[in-house]
Amino acid sequence: MVDIATRVWNHKWRIDPIVRSLIDTDFYKLLMCQSIFRNKPDTQVTFSLINRSQNVPLAKLIDEGELREQLDHIRTLSLSRGESTWLRGNTFYGKRQMFRSDFMEWFENLRLPPYHLERKGDQYELTFEGKWHEVMLWEIPALAVLMELRGRSVLGKMEQFELQILYARAMTRVWEKVEALRDIPDLSIADFGTRRRHSFLWQDWCVQAMNEGLGPKFTGTSNCKIAMKRELEAIGTNAHELPMVYAALTKTDEDLFQAPYKVLEDWHEEHEGNLRIILPDTYGSQGFLDNAPDWLAGWTGIRIDSGDPATAAQQAIDWWKSRGEDPRDKRVIFSDGLDVAKIKELHAQFAGKTAISFGWGTLLTNDFRELVPGDALAPFSLVCKAVSANGVPTVKLSDNPNKAMGPKDEIERYKRVFSMGEQKSQEVIV
Amino acid sequence: MVDIATRVWNHKWRIDPIVRSLIDTDFYKLLMCQSIFRNKPDTQVTFSLINRSQNVPLAKLIDEGELREQLDHIRTLSLSRGESTWLRGNTFYGKRQMFRSDFMEWFENLRLPPYHLERKGDQYELTFEGKWHEVMLWEIPALAVLMELRGRSVLGKMEQFELQILYARAMTRVWEKVEALRDIPDLSIADFGTRRRHSFLWQDWCVQAMNEGLGPKFTGTSNCKIAMKRELEAIGTNAHELPMVYAALTKTDEDLFQAPYKVLEDWHEEHEGNLRIILPDTYGSQGFLDNAPDWLAGWTGIRIDSGDPATAAQQAIDWWKSRGEDPRDKRVIFSDGLDVAKIKELHAQFAGKTAISFGWGTLLTNDFRELVPGDALAPFSLVCKAVSANGVPTVKLSDNPNKAMGPKDEIERYKRVFSMGEQKSQEVIV
Repeated sequence: MVDIATRVWNHKWRIDPIVRSLIDTDFYKLLMCQSIFRNKPDTQVTFSLINRSQNVPLAKLIDEGELREQLDHIRTLSLSRGESTWLRGNTFYGKRQMFRSDFMEWFENLRLPPYHLERKGDQYELTFEGKWHEVMLWEIPALAVLMELRGRSVLGKMEQFELQILYARAMTRVWEKVEALRDIPDLSIADFGTRRRHSFLWQDWCVQAMNEGLGPKFTGTSNCKIAMKRELEAIGTNAHELPMVYAALTKTDEDLFQAPYKVLEDWHEEHEGNLRIILPDTYGSQGFLDNAPDWLAGWTGIRIDSGDPATAAQQAIDWWKSRGEDPRDKRVIFSDGLDVAKIKELHAQFAGKTAISFGWGTLLTNDFRELVPGDALAPFSLVCKAVSANGVPTVKLSDNPNKAMGPKDEIERYKRVFSMGEQKSQEVIV
Repeated sequence: MVDIATRVWNHKWRIDPIVRSLIDTDFYKLLMCQSIFRNKPDTQVTFSLINRSQNVPLAKLIDEGELREQLDHIRTLSLSRGESTWLRGNTFYGKRQMFRSDFMEWFENLRLPPYHLERKGDQYELTFEGKWHEVMLWEIPALAVLMELRGRSVLGKMEQFELQILYARAMTRVWEKVEALRDIPDLSIADFGTRRRHSFLWQDWCVQAMNEGLGPKFTGTSNCKIAMKRELEAIGTNAHELPMVYAALTKTDEDLFQAPYKVLEDWHEEHEGNLRIILPDTYGSQGFLDNAPDWLAGWTGIRIDSGDPATAAQQAIDWWKSRGEDPRDKRVIFSDGLDVAKIKELHAQFAGKTAISFGWGTLLTNDFRELVPGDALAPFSLVCKAVSANGVPTVKLSDNPNKAMGPKDEIERYKRVFSMGEQKSQEVIV
């Protein structure tokens, strides 16, 4: 029996929207948004798309009209009643009412601000300007839209059975990863793959596969919509945009030097326990830790998002010891360029020395490498970053110079202020 | 939108029927049925299930009640109007009205005769007695039911994502086979996998994958229901049951010796062209060919269903040459234990020497080897054969003694009558 009404309804859609909810985004964006809403409500920022993989000619692959339709659709979205209820009623990291009433009231009325889109050669220039706590919510949906439209440009040329086999192969690959991870005792791993996912449905499938295959070893997903839909934990804390914008807002070198700590001071007031996770690498991890105030050593953990992860984890362990803390009471969260082999290696190296967690991103939710001719579905390195705050360009140094960003002279100033020495380059794959 | 009516309808079914149509069977059964209906309408036969894989304890795996329900359901089936129209209106092997009106009228009123089922240790004794042209239609559905119920006994214990991955892996495997076959120039291959398929839906999927992936190199399917549904050619000619029953009906050694030729004499009257395919191995191919009347050398081809296929193909080529025929005008059809490597090997060996076709069975529609623990979904060797005709036991010698059947003393008599020498055993995998 064909349900004629459903069929007609499905064909009525002018487009197949990629992002269908304002909470189809990473949980840490909402935490940071609330923090900014309270602490920096008047800051004006510009976010900009940056395609680190210039070999992927996005403007050739993606039709500008289709891209605009998807972005326009996102601007029509508002928080649904059920989503609002979930945010208000849920327990996040063991805490009820994580989101304050004034923030929720604002969020319930939010529509995302306008975007600016222009083709520049084979790439798109896509920027968002406005209040920081509004503009910053564009990051994840913008990335998800571009990743998925690029995928659709390849999928659109495939036959029915080719498509079915493509997904059969991709599913088998994810499942084999899940099976390989099962053996790791005390594994703690979450999905961090929203921004560079193959598609929403695919991320949702990967999350379900992880959940069935790993049981309690799978701790949740960064994606709020999927966490809500699948009754899972929403996972995430904070990101580079906080120190980057805080730093850009400073006037003196001394204030600049203090900016990353000021971010965590604000965070300290708002959050406790497992939400107190240091992201030390924005302007070099070693310098950040060496000069950190003692109260930061009391925080629960450190997230490692650039540089050699084993080196960085050891650096964190050494730092805790030097501050009189027992690393076995601490947690290291790995979230950069993970795949099964790296996860196993890091687990073997650090299990017992400290608690470890993994935030698994692109190679969980977008490992379509080698599955189509020309590797046209391989993930690539696309980011959407705050590039200026109140008119001042932001700077990121990172522990990997390939992830650095900002104007050259400002980079030099930051390097000087943060006493950044020589850095080791690492290839950015995803 | 949930279609509530569909959902309720789906849950109303007391069982999930495995065979849902009388033409969910191999095309050659219908051709043979019509021939028997005309030439041997009064012959009484017994067909019996024979599990050559005694290591598969069917009675432990399959509940007797469920088996009865499936078999009882098949007894409720009758030819639908559309099925009848398709059989009457379709062109088979280039011929319109392949099925005569008297046969179609009988078929339209047919219900399958009763079965006899009894558990014997870990196996089932399943037999069918009655008129040959009625009983013989049990063979394929009975095998399909047992194969699929055995599969369900394994699938029933699996979780949702395990199931999805199982099929993802199996689909990937079939597709990789299809891709490997694509490169073979002038390939001609058909699906012969109804009897030992994993399930109807799976066979239907495999057929579609072959059709999309191989295009005109895929010549069709032996399954009439799928041929009808997918608008493909129905493929098949004749099988061992004809010479086996004809032989059992003879009174003298001389008549016995002539029986296999008498079968083809009757066939010769009814069919021409690509339907004139010799199946020479029932009582030994070499003897059959050596003693064959000259008119048989005028037939279009030979199907090779036991023994070493390369040896048998060369035997056929040599025989045609010895009878003054050009083997390049002839066709060899390989249908025994095929998989990609064997298909490629045989094609490489005989391309150009004669036309070749492949009838690909079990390892197309049931290659679930190594996909579950204990290899519990691996195909196994189940057959359903005519074991007696008018009270006399039938005998099959085959070119592989492991496929021989019949009472010991009768086998000895047949070997003497057909001057069968030493035979080389070959493992029967599927």
